[in-house]
Amino acid sequence: MRVLVPFGARDPKSRLSSLFSPTERRDLAEAMLEDVLAALSDHEPVVVANAPVETTAPTQVDDRPLTTAVNARLGEEPTAVVMADLPLVRGETIARLLDTEGDVVVAPGLGGGTNALVVRDSDFETDYHGVSVRDHRERARAVGATVATVDSYRLGVDIDEPSDLVEVLLHGEGTTSRWLREHGGRIETTDGRTRFRRDRPK
Amino acid sequence: MRVLVPFGARDPKSRLSSLFSPTERRDLAEAMLEDVLAALSDHEPVVVANAPVETTAPTQVDDRPLTTAVNARLGEEPTAVVMADLPLVRGETIARLLDTEGDVVVAPGLGGGTNALVVRDSDFETDYHGVSVRDHRERARAVGATVATVDSYRLGVDIDEPSDLVEVLLHGEGTTSRWLREHGGRIETTDGRTRFRRDRPK
Repeated sequence: MRVLVPFGARDPKSRLSSLFSPTERRDLAEAMLEDVLAALSDHEPVVVANAPVETTAPTQVDDRPLTTAVNARLGEEPTAVVMADLPLVRGETIARLLDTEGDVVVAPGLGGGTNALVVRDSDFETDYHGVSVRDHRERARAVGATVATVDSYRLGVDIDEPSDLVEVLLHGEGTTSRWLREHGGRIETTDGRTRFRRDRPK
Repeated sequence: MRVLVPFGARDPKSRLSSLFSPTERRDLAEAMLEDVLAALSDHEPVVVANAPVETTAPTQVDDRPLTTAVNARLGEEPTAVVMADLPLVRGETIARLLDTEGDVVVAPGLGGGTNALVVRDSDFETDYHGVSVRDHRERARAVGATVATVDSYRLGVDIDEPSDLVEVLLHGEGTTSRWLREHGGRIETTDGRTRFRRDRPK
């Protein structure tokens, strides 16, 4: 199946700016992209970036908004759309996504996002604005498409906020978790959920 | 399989105290327990509560710390431990958990928790303190038990903090999502992840 990997290359991961500089955030975003592309190595992913980026996969630069750039690439051919900030995904996670039957398959992300989609209905269009997981389900039904959901933690955890980074340290095995450790990332235990801490060199 | 459902009945869900009164938090915790017990209806769950609680399932009151109370009930018989604050779980989620092979099966929760466990090795003991998902994996290996992980969003999202409540409104279908709506809960769209808002009667 054709797989698109949208990548926001302009000031990425701005909600991590309390922890990392702009250059570091760019490096971190590219590390996550690398992990996602590694999980997709049995497929032929195409990166759709809103600014130039160096990757190991074929890359198309499209500076239109995410929704427009993705919809321009949907059509007759079944297509998966996998976000670039999912460093927990593995090959087996992607297999489960692509093996799930349904005209539209949704992998929900924390806070109402759609972290991955499989589109097998040429009338379906994405809308990543707002509560996209709800909107995608409604749009699918509106065009008479069947909808299925993939129940996956590895697809569900996208990295946007500092608290997400503990998930990478706990459950990631790739470039991103290595990058975080190399940049002083560690887990701090609290009474409740663990917290991400960055130790800076003295 | 025997299934234990630990329930913290004393001042539950204290990290939601900015949103709900103590009585409301108790009601909310019981609504979540009800959803978990409904998902377990094909099994024979036993609630292990640290103070008396009215439930539809057999309940044992044990006021020792969670880890002690659970370990006292592990033994030769394979046993699952499913937390009471997982209102997204369904019967099919539980089936996937119980069908996963391994001496110890772990369902990670956000922030390093262990939201569900299956224990088929009589030498294994739980430790819910700290980064329990990491500790449980290490303890399993230390007793020579095989470890497997269930990759599930529905098991991974436990309800502790205000941001978790949007997940219930988006993906829950049971008592908890109804309770939240009846108590003014709604989703607020932002530039990033959605936020939980409570409208209070005027």
